[in-house]
Amino acid sequence: MRSNSPSLSSSGTPTPIIGAAFGILLVLSPILLGARGYLILMSLAGLVIVVGGVIAVAFMSFAAIEVRSALSAIVKFSRQTPAKIDDLSHDVENIVKWSSQIRNKGMRRFEADIATERIGDPVVRYGLNMVLSEYGPDDIRSMINTVADACYEREIRPVEILEAMTSHAPAFGMVGTLIGMVAMLSNLTDNISGIGASLAVAFLSTLYGVLSARMIYMPAATRLRQDVDRRRSRHNFLAEGMAMLAGKKSPMYIQDRLNGFLRPEVQDYFGARSASPPIRLKVVHA
Amino acid sequence: MRSNSPSLSSSGTPTPIIGAAFGILLVLSPILLGARGYLILMSLAGLVIVVGGVIAVAFMSFAAIEVRSALSAIVKFSRQTPAKIDDLSHDVENIVKWSSQIRNKGMRRFEADIATERIGDPVVRYGLNMVLSEYGPDDIRSMINTVADACYEREIRPVEILEAMTSHAPAFGMVGTLIGMVAMLSNLTDNISGIGASLAVAFLSTLYGVLSARMIYMPAATRLRQDVDRRRSRHNFLAEGMAMLAGKKSPMYIQDRLNGFLRPEVQDYFGARSASPPIRLKVVHA
Amino acid sequence: MRSNSPSLSSSGTPTPIIGAAFGILLVLSPILLGARGYLILMSLAGLVIVVGGVIAVAFMSFAAIEVRSALSAIVKFSRQTPAKIDDLSHDVENIVKWSSQIRNKGMRRFEADIATERIGDPVVRYGLNMVLSEYGPDDIRSMINTVADACYEREIRPVEILEAMTSHAPAFGMVGTLIGMVAMLSNLTDNISGIGASLAVAFLSTLYGVLSARMIYMPAATRLRQDVDRRRSRHNFLAEGMAMLAGKKSPMYIQDRLNGFLRPEVQDYFGARSASPPIRLKVVHA
Amino acid sequence: MRSNSPSLSSSGTPTPIIGAAFGILLVLSPILLGARGYLILMSLAGLVIVVGGVIAVAFMSFAAIEVRSALSAIVKFSRQTPAKIDDLSHDVENIVKWSSQIRNKGMRRFEADIATERIGDPVVRYGLNMVLSEYGPDDIRSMINTVADACYEREIRPVEILEAMTSHAPAFGMVGTLIGMVAMLSNLTDNISGIGASLAVAFLSTLYGVLSARMIYMPAATRLRQDVDRRRSRHNFLAEGMAMLAGKKSPMYIQDRLNGFLRPEVQDYFGARSASPPIRLKVVHA
Amino acid sequence: MRSNSPSLSSSGTPTPIIGAAFGILLVLSPILLGARGYLILMSLAGLVIVVGGVIAVAFMSFAAIEVRSALSAIVKFSRQTPAKIDDLSHDVENIVKWSSQIRNKGMRRFEADIATERIGDPVVRYGLNMVLSEYGPDDIRSMINTVADACYEREIRPVEILEAMTSHAPAFGMVGTLIGMVAMLSNLTDNISGIGASLAVAFLSTLYGVLSARMIYMPAATRLRQDVDRRRSRHNFLAEGMAMLAGKKSPMYIQDRLNGFLRPEVQDYFGARSASPPIRLKVVHA
Repeated sequence: MRSNSPSLSSSGTPTPIIGAAFGILLVLSPILLGARGYLILMSLAGLVIVVGGVIAVAFMSFAAIEVRSALSAIVKFSRQTPAKIDDLSHDVENIVKWSSQIRNKGMRRFEADIATERIGDPVVRYGLNMVLSEYGPDDIRSMINTVADACYEREIRPVEILEAMTSHAPAFGMVGTLIGMVAMLSNLTDNISGIGASLAVAFLSTLYGVLSARMIYMPAATRLRQDVDRRRSRHNFLAEGMAMLAGKKSPMYIQDRLNGFLRPEVQDYFGARSASPPIRLKVVHA
Repeated sequence: MRSNSPSLSSSGTPTPIIGAAFGILLVLSPILLGARGYLILMSLAGLVIVVGGVIAVAFMSFAAIEVRSALSAIVKFSRQTPAKIDDLSHDVENIVKWSSQIRNKGMRRFEADIATERIGDPVVRYGLNMVLSEYGPDDIRSMINTVADACYEREIRPVEILEAMTSHAPAFGMVGTLIGMVAMLSNLTDNISGIGASLAVAFLSTLYGVLSARMIYMPAATRLRQDVDRRRSRHNFLAEGMAMLAGKKSPMYIQDRLNGFLRPEVQDYFGARSASPPIRLKVVHA
Repeated sequence: MRSNSPSLSSSGTPTPIIGAAFGILLVLSPILLGARGYLILMSLAGLVIVVGGVIAVAFMSFAAIEVRSALSAIVKFSRQTPAKIDDLSHDVENIVKWSSQIRNKGMRRFEADIATERIGDPVVRYGLNMVLSEYGPDDIRSMINTVADACYEREIRPVEILEAMTSHAPAFGMVGTLIGMVAMLSNLTDNISGIGASLAVAFLSTLYGVLSARMIYMPAATRLRQDVDRRRSRHNFLAEGMAMLAGKKSPMYIQDRLNGFLRPEVQDYFGARSASPPIRLKVVHA
Repeated sequence: MRSNSPSLSSSGTPTPIIGAAFGILLVLSPILLGARGYLILMSLAGLVIVVGGVIAVAFMSFAAIEVRSALSAIVKFSRQTPAKIDDLSHDVENIVKWSSQIRNKGMRRFEADIATERIGDPVVRYGLNMVLSEYGPDDIRSMINTVADACYEREIRPVEILEAMTSHAPAFGMVGTLIGMVAMLSNLTDNISGIGASLAVAFLSTLYGVLSARMIYMPAATRLRQDVDRRRSRHNFLAEGMAMLAGKKSPMYIQDRLNGFLRPEVQDYFGARSASPPIRLKVVHA
Repeated sequence: MRSNSPSLSSSGTPTPIIGAAFGILLVLSPILLGARGYLILMSLAGLVIVVGGVIAVAFMSFAAIEVRSALSAIVKFSRQTPAKIDDLSHDVENIVKWSSQIRNKGMRRFEADIATERIGDPVVRYGLNMVLSEYGPDDIRSMINTVADACYEREIRPVEILEAMTSHAPAFGMVGTLIGMVAMLSNLTDNISGIGASLAVAFLSTLYGVLSARMIYMPAATRLRQDVDRRRSRHNFLAEGMAMLAGKKSPMYIQDRLNGFLRPEVQDYFGARSASPPIRLKVVHA
């Protein structure tokens, strides 16, 4: 629904690219600041330890398919600007519309109507299916919440993997630095510029570890968690709405009830009453 | 309501300005302590890494509009002294007044009366609207709590951003220091005062990171969280009050019930009974 | 109640004074260990950064009146030994006594009796007031719990401030050390004893930060939290007791019910039954 | 059930072996990087401190039998690739089948039938036993949940032990490094290459501590926690299913209800309704 | 009950003594590794700072009587191997026995019988007392749970103290090291072996801090927490059992219900049904 709203709400600035450019600049800055050329080659060992260690531990701790989905989230987010879409107004409209169809035409006619619509969202489809099977509101609510919980548990795993990677990256940065220092110290001589160069290479591992944690794994984890949480709230909202459909509540009641989930910009409960004549004199509770 | 109470309770001392002055003093102190002049220029790189890194990661992790609202909270708080306003006595008065209006004149007359008042607060207006639509107390309570939860989830996001910034700032301070040390070590010579100056510049990044976390991001996060929590408790309180309005409870019952939310200084339940004759001989529960 | 029991249970040892003496000894120990005299003067800067920074951030983050109450808790606790008083037996006695007065003489006579007693505790007074207004047990319980929650939220704030100070102090110690090192490094010479003295001064800041966190802010936070938690459990206990008063439960039932909150030393439910003839053959539930 | 699915979902790559090879490579890398040969011998002390310390503290903190089960989890996981098996479709099938057997033939015939099946899973057997004893649904649910909780508390202990080990390993790495540095410093001479070698050995302890925490204890803890959580969700699912068996719900209702626990790939609620004629016109609630 | 099972399950190895030997070996290892003899004497200051600081802060933060009970737990645990005893089968037997006595002979005869038994456990005695007073199941459950909560709050305090000590010990280790370094740096000369010796002594404080935290305070905290948690689950179990006694449930129902709390090795619900003829054809719910 409204797949164009992200670009709308963030005015098209490709932040992730700017961020990545900033990160690469930081990684390369020692060379720009005059560090000797062969640092780039030498620091490859550090890069291998940090990136390899983080990915190896991830595959040792979690199922391969889940690690791959966490890694693909990193790739996906690097092409998108984070956007704030938790607009449920389209869902509110649909549920209110369905509720008046059920009230006016009955459940069987509604079933025929809905069969012609192409409903893509699996949870909405499952919910409608259960409503058409005429389960009670409490059954419907707990069925959809079961689906929502199972869905959340599956989707939160890649977030956990990315958060584990955020904690592993600086640790492997430290591992790289320690290895570099042990190698340097075990051959310690008076050659001060040799010592300096070795230490510089050793410290690069820590730099890679901290930077990859802060600029790759942590932003991806934060954004994926927001996505997953947003989907979960929407599922809880759908559970509430479908339960009211099953309870054959009046469209007006459903509208009032679901409005609370909307953002103030979208809600129209503010001036509505004072502007229009009091149309809702008394709600007859179904 | 009572917009003058902040200045009242904090006796007008512009603490944030004193704090900022203290912070700038700390940042400049190395120069005051005799460090060479060009440190100021050189440390610009550190400042760019710390401030730029924190802001870049924020824009990579959260929607642009939310990051901007977090940054504007920093600016806003720098001009205000933190104040302790959780005074709900005005709301208690209003709800008790409305409850006696509903009891005495009926719901429709109350609707006409309330239409003439200008109620600015959207949650109060939404709640009254739902009371006038004659929903039951439990519906009202859960409707307002839904609005309160949705509102809280929106408002807590900038707090989360500021807390993420608090954790990013020292990390980027360390990044700056590592870059400085790598640059210095890769050109290590015997020139001891050159080494000293380079290390000094490198350490300034860590200083900027720790100071900006502790004196900018963390105070802003703490204050914004207090604001958001305070607003949430008021919403929960309003849900309770509006539910009692809808339940047509007696004004006295509502007063007694809501008094518990007030601060002792404001509550008048202490001497009240002994001073006055026992007017509440028996509460007839509505 | 029983204001003399703290001194009783802790056998009069003025631990805080011993602790403070230990702390001052640690701070002065470098000088005792032979460090040069002017260290004391020079380290003033570190002290100002650590103490000043912690207090400035506190005033930037929290309302002035709350910070002052947190600071006054430090002063208060420095004069007292921590004591373990969570003895509710006096409250149990009172509630049982009142319950038999209500049973024997009726609510109105009890009201006259209680008016002659001087009840200092505001929550007890509020609870009795609500019992006399003849609210139901559930109303009473939730009213007193509302007061208890509001009270807890007010009282826990200084604990949060002291805990924030505990985390700020070592950070500002690090700030002081960084400033000292930057100043020293930017004027690095071959004068080894000069370097040593500068570094010594710089490290003193970290020492002040860690010591003030561990010996001032953290003990105060821990003790204040215990006090606040203790007061909260007593309020929850009072809510339970007052609800039973309002429910006109038998004094024996109330005694049995509230005994569970007492400490084993005070409870007399152990030998009671076997020692005395079975007086409670059958409880008639009110 | 479907014991071949792990190898299916992870395409047979023996990740743990690759991971272990990577770890050993890292540990040996200082020697590969040219560190002197006797480092290997000398660093034995560090290895003893890190491994011995972690295991000694584990045996001091937890029962021997539980520590052994934690250690055996490490061994077990090193031979397996982590797999994602939370497929409950087999359980759903069984419960639906049993429910229609109970409906069609009655409880006593079902008891005879089930006695011939060999049910290996103790919780399923216990649940069926309680269903055959004709306890009510709420009793059944809380009985199985009691078993699930008791089971979880037993099984989570080795996870806690592995997590404690993860935190102990770097601490004992630091202990080894401190001991090495104290030994070196107390015999400090001008022999710079001697100092270097001693420091290199000292730093190896920290390297062992960090690497063993990140590549041994933490992955084992993460995987064991996933196993235990998975088993717990299955038990909660069984409690729900058995309660519906005891409540004599219709097989269709049970199917719809339990489908929510399945993964979308397995669920067939998506196209089912539109493909087939509306067979579930009206559910008669048992 | 079954006081001999600890030695049974841990096969008599006195792990704490081995652990302590390992710890002392680590502390002395610098000397064994050849550090100069007077290190032992000099490092006394570090020991005083670490041990004294931790204990001083404990007495400043908690009541003296509670700190003493935390310290005595350390002493107690140093003489015992941790054991895994959460066997409730004896309690299950007793409750089932009492339930059939109540069913067969009536409450008054049961009271006479039970008076002759010597019941040592205060919570069991309190629970039976309340059952004999013929309170309802819900009253009994909440009374015993109140006792269990009050008991838990008292017993968890020493755990909190030991956990605070675990966090204080490394901090005071750092304090000792900082004091040693300040003393050394303020008298910095070219005497390299003097510097080494001073630094060695300074680092010993950190070593003491980390080792005492990991090998003394943390194991004691972990074991005490296990004890307290175990006692709490048993109390919750007793609350459930006593409530069923008061509800006059059948012994068979009580057995089935409480079996879920037992460990699989002890439970006999597995083969029971299939082995024996179906004796429980239909449970008549009391």
